[in-house]
Amino acid sequence: MEHNNQTQTISTLSPFTQPIRCIVKLGGAAITCKNELEMINEEILRKVSEQLRQAMITSSEKPPGMDWSRRPGSSEICCNPEEFGDHSVVDFSRFIVVHGAGSFGHFQASKSSVHKGQLNKPLVKAGFVATRISVTTLTLEIIRALAREGIPSVGISPFSCGWFTRERQVSSADLSSVAKAIDSGFTPVLHGDAVLDEILGCTILSGDVIISHLAAYSKPEYVVFLTDVYGVYDRPPTEPDAVLLKEIAVSEDGSWSVVKPKLQNSIELTVAAHDTTGGMQTKISEAAMIAKLGIDVYIVKAATSHSLRALTGDLRRDIPDDWLGTVVRSSR
Amino acid sequence: MEHNNQTQTISTLSPFTQPIRCIVKLGGAAITCKNELEMINEEILRKVSEQLRQAMITSSEKPPGMDWSRRPGSSEICCNPEEFGDHSVVDFSRFIVVHGAGSFGHFQASKSSVHKGQLNKPLVKAGFVATRISVTTLTLEIIRALAREGIPSVGISPFSCGWFTRERQVSSADLSSVAKAIDSGFTPVLHGDAVLDEILGCTILSGDVIISHLAAYSKPEYVVFLTDVYGVYDRPPTEPDAVLLKEIAVSEDGSWSVVKPKLQNSIELTVAAHDTTGGMQTKISEAAMIAKLGIDVYIVKAATSHSLRALTGDLRRDIPDDWLGTVVRSSR
Repeated sequence: MEHNNQTQTISTLSPFTQPIRCIVKLGGAAITCKNELEMINEEILRKVSEQLRQAMITSSEKPPGMDWSRRPGSSEICCNPEEFGDHSVVDFSRFIVVHGAGSFGHFQASKSSVHKGQLNKPLVKAGFVATRISVTTLTLEIIRALAREGIPSVGISPFSCGWFTRERQVSSADLSSVAKAIDSGFTPVLHGDAVLDEILGCTILSGDVIISHLAAYSKPEYVVFLTDVYGVYDRPPTEPDAVLLKEIAVSEDGSWSVVKPKLQNSIELTVAAHDTTGGMQTKISEAAMIAKLGIDVYIVKAATSHSLRALTGDLRRDIPDDWLGTVVRSSR
Repeated sequence: MEHNNQTQTISTLSPFTQPIRCIVKLGGAAITCKNELEMINEEILRKVSEQLRQAMITSSEKPPGMDWSRRPGSSEICCNPEEFGDHSVVDFSRFIVVHGAGSFGHFQASKSSVHKGQLNKPLVKAGFVATRISVTTLTLEIIRALAREGIPSVGISPFSCGWFTRERQVSSADLSSVAKAIDSGFTPVLHGDAVLDEILGCTILSGDVIISHLAAYSKPEYVVFLTDVYGVYDRPPTEPDAVLLKEIAVSEDGSWSVVKPKLQNSIELTVAAHDTTGGMQTKISEAAMIAKLGIDVYIVKAATSHSLRALTGDLRRDIPDDWLGTVVRSSR
């Protein structure tokens, strides 16, 4: 399968001055309640934030929280300056977090067909505003959850920091804010967003496309997609005979094949099956594009022992047989 | 009084292709409850949003709302696609909204002295994250209030869209996102924010400084500061003999004098008195700097008949005797 060549057409030089360890996608389906409008899966989000903290610092001790805002229903805020003491800042390794929208934004975007453009239509324009309000609500809650774990998270919305598309492909993206935030020791949090499109007027930029663009410029050591299933299957995972694809190899021309397990059906059949699940096709394409750059991609169920192994980078040396997930890597 | 010459030192060309009608500052003290941590003054915010809508469109009819997210305590969302019909988009005149922090952000920033820099201190770094969480919470609520009035508001956070300072002066600011949002018919909403500083590591960029920077590049027809008092007084407005300064003239060298009413005390005394109130000195300096560019500035109490007159631009022709507020304008 051919990937699109969006990143090659952009002539910006990379603003990243320091190596990035990992880009993590928090899948919308994993961190929100799929069938409930604008409802966060608090337990999963808390666990994901905890695992991120564990992966980012060597100390097992949780640093003091950085969310000093009130929580709904509480009149108290949680801030004790003395906790911070006088020692130096805890060194978090350089991660970039990107999240999807899940049950936030999706309703607003689909009601108004924001992805199709036509900002001159009142409904589309309103949907653009409404979508951004909804995804901004989610991103704020994710930033707060990370901050409560002591992760110095800062929000960088693609719409507001110069991400534009041209017929849905990224045509420009100002990555300097992301790079400078990292250089100052922060963990940037980006998200799928409604953005302006040079041809269509507007569209939806997905978190997966953001990740492959960021990966091309920042060249992280590895990329982790946290989802609500154990990885990529040969057919919808709800079907009884669905087989988890444990390893996918991507060749230099961008085509990919399943290395583990050995399958009887051809790849073409596998792809077709995935198309019907919606979204998984995009995810594999984007993952293949990242893998082609020589960057390992792990697709894994959020908030499990398997996701913790992926986040810490342990799998880079060796993938144990009992690890459940999909690794997508270059065949070179 | 000399203004600083921060905007002159920046060599960026203006990205604004179309004339801006008005930049509005929503003062933090006006839209939040001063003495209650992270509490919005909902009634004032609703009224301010309504007046903004009245000033921005000629039709007296309220367009359909654009906030389709759930409100706390409600399980319903408010969206009826049929309301939008098939006619063209309502033309909102080009406004930029900038708001202060009030009881949001202030607590977090002062607990950690973010304005002084030193990001290598754990407390400052945490305070930076905490301050951004708090002001982002406020900006989201303001965007939602504007959207409920049908104003196509989109948030553009200074930190995330390339505003950096150098010893607290704006050293760079990517205004292209603001300009492109306006070109697409949106109303950008910016806010006072924690930002990275090239020398100090970090600092607080105030809404007032953002406004004077935006004004220098976008050259709006007029600027309105909405506050919690009727305008600028010759001493703290809580003092019994405080006199409202109705007109201040700014000369080419940036010095300013009170034109109306005729005062017995000298300007120097006036300035000194204001210094003790905290903040008003900055506001007058920034207003004088804007007025020096030939742009009228109205400082007026939010959510009053006086603020509506200022927002609609009626005062540009003639300032009626019964208008309560302060106009700061060039003496030329």
